[in-house]
Amino acid sequence: MLSHSVGLVKPQAFHCHQPLLLSCGQTLDQYTLMYESYGELNADKSNAVLICHALSGNHHAAGYHREDDKHPGWWDTAIGPGKAIDTNRFFVVCCNNLGGCSGSTGPVSTNPNTGHLYGADFPLLTVRDWVNSQHQLMQHLGIAQWAAVVGGSLGGMQALQWTIDYPDTLRHCLCIASAPNLTAQNIAFNEVARQAITSDPDFCDGHYLQVGLRPARGLRLARMLGHITYLSDDAMGEKFGRSLQRDKIHYDYGSEFQVESYLRYQGDKFADTFDANTYLLMTKALDYFDPAAEFDGELSRALEKSRARFLILSFTTDWRFQPHRSEEIVSALLEADKDVSYVAIESNSGHDAFLLDIPEYMAIFTAYMQQVEVSDAP
Amino acid sequence: MLSHSVGLVKPQAFHCHQPLLLSCGQTLDQYTLMYESYGELNADKSNAVLICHALSGNHHAAGYHREDDKHPGWWDTAIGPGKAIDTNRFFVVCCNNLGGCSGSTGPVSTNPNTGHLYGADFPLLTVRDWVNSQHQLMQHLGIAQWAAVVGGSLGGMQALQWTIDYPDTLRHCLCIASAPNLTAQNIAFNEVARQAITSDPDFCDGHYLQVGLRPARGLRLARMLGHITYLSDDAMGEKFGRSLQRDKIHYDYGSEFQVESYLRYQGDKFADTFDANTYLLMTKALDYFDPAAEFDGELSRALEKSRARFLILSFTTDWRFQPHRSEEIVSALLEADKDVSYVAIESNSGHDAFLLDIPEYMAIFTAYMQQVEVSDAP
Repeated sequence: MLSHSVGLVKPQAFHCHQPLLLSCGQTLDQYTLMYESYGELNADKSNAVLICHALSGNHHAAGYHREDDKHPGWWDTAIGPGKAIDTNRFFVVCCNNLGGCSGSTGPVSTNPNTGHLYGADFPLLTVRDWVNSQHQLMQHLGIAQWAAVVGGSLGGMQALQWTIDYPDTLRHCLCIASAPNLTAQNIAFNEVARQAITSDPDFCDGHYLQVGLRPARGLRLARMLGHITYLSDDAMGEKFGRSLQRDKIHYDYGSEFQVESYLRYQGDKFADTFDANTYLLMTKALDYFDPAAEFDGELSRALEKSRARFLILSFTTDWRFQPHRSEEIVSALLEADKDVSYVAIESNSGHDAFLLDIPEYMAIFTAYMQQVEVSDAP
Repeated sequence: MLSHSVGLVKPQAFHCHQPLLLSCGQTLDQYTLMYESYGELNADKSNAVLICHALSGNHHAAGYHREDDKHPGWWDTAIGPGKAIDTNRFFVVCCNNLGGCSGSTGPVSTNPNTGHLYGADFPLLTVRDWVNSQHQLMQHLGIAQWAAVVGGSLGGMQALQWTIDYPDTLRHCLCIASAPNLTAQNIAFNEVARQAITSDPDFCDGHYLQVGLRPARGLRLARMLGHITYLSDDAMGEKFGRSLQRDKIHYDYGSEFQVESYLRYQGDKFADTFDANTYLLMTKALDYFDPAAEFDGELSRALEKSRARFLILSFTTDWRFQPHRSEEIVSALLEADKDVSYVAIESNSGHDAFLLDIPEYMAIFTAYMQQVEVSDAP
């Protein structure tokens, strides 16, 4: 465990007993959000930063759960003492989104109204629903305004949605490797992943847990496919090229090339741990996100009431959410006369870049966060 | 049926009883190739053009099998009287590749040595094997030299391989929307498609037909995924955008967006008709293609003995085989001092562009074919 780590951290549970009306029309009478926090909240509570996670993330954004953990939280590159989101200055909060499978209420939870697992009966969610639930967590923590809301990919969409739905409750919005909505191609990839899961015979219409099954084949395929879209063509070329997995071509269906073996491994690892219904609803939330839709497609109007300052970052070889998608957000913000900084960061690492320790990226991220005003030290 | 069509055509079978030694080391003692021909062979047999098909193609490249056929052959845009490959001048031959499922010997055929269906026992093939079998068809037809060998995508790889393995037997090589080998990303997409098929419980280790099953779920996923890679992000955006399939968002797993419905339809249609083992071996042949590998990665050395003139075409939004992949072929040909023409054609249609009636494309294709020398009219 390194000295610039937040060290050992412990997840906490927020049990919310206020009903949450969802975009789909259903109401959740009660729910739990698992969250972690790093750093200390200062006296006037002006140093709180909310981290929003992406598709398969959770509340464990930094530090370690046990001394012998092999890996830290998913954004440990960016969160910690002296890091971009400096826990010496900020009180950092990250929750597992509603519908998740890491402890927050979701498809693997028991429906208190029926006593059965939710499974496929868990309602579909939107980014707005997540922001509403995060807002309830915020109130529970006694925080009136976030110094910043920060997220990459799907997390960036949540950060944007915060500025739209709760414009007075955040001073800065950092939206990284994200997009104002999904393209047809983005939706298409999500749909293939979903079809892989739902057509797995072990999916059992989403009630697999009740019968002791898991659609591991489908989830594995979904993850393999996802992985291709997270990496750039260049990055895959550099990492694997056409390197063989074995001594020579065997003319069989074993892994001939290293990239095949890598994908199989990634798929297997994910399928062992993640919940299929959660994966499905996370991809649907991505598909549904489109804040401009309520304003005749005019994103600038959707962002009109936002009061935050914005940092928008994209990565040059990200082909899932290309730089021009971030630039659509920037244009809309400029049109709405908002304060926005934007950098397209040179990187070979595709969409995954937002999770990596890329010097230029971290320098910009750090510099921006350093000028986020905090009234006093914790 | 339009006047510039080759009209009604009838597939023919070439039964080859000469053994074919395959790249994998196995030998096929005998095999059948289904083929079609359009136009007439001239007296000195100097006007024969071979068409090589891509992943899911077959011998039915042009015309109609029945008066009431809804669709003509797969490259009817390019083949016919007055078209780019003008059947008033050329005698055009197209065969279903070995391993196919449209009548040529393949996994759905009976192994004459065992009396059982080949299924998964059908050997894996390479582009070189296909060219060798096409060469046997050529001899059967009494043709000593093709005026041109023409193909798109995987078909373009076969055209290239012809110039390497049988340099004296073709005067022109047209290699369209192709690549000198697959990138790690290309292989990765193929691998996900294969895993979708082989992890389908109905795959039965490839012997599904023997037990009356078909891995339709897996084949459907493979095709859905393939489709995304054939279309450009732009083309999908223009065709579907974020248009809804139903009146409004329903927050369920029905098709919310038109692109989802389209992919499901394409997947279903393909899964009903294509053979899974054929799909697997076609993707493997793509993965294996790498003529430079035998020459320390130097494509120019692989092409050294080629005697054909080359037309290389790429399409600007093709992200499966990007223009720079075609340009690698062009550079190698120039380095080997070959006669090559190259155009990157502006198109919004992605990889699929090679099958479409794009005016600039057809104009270049036609102009090139017009200067292909034919000693006399048929």
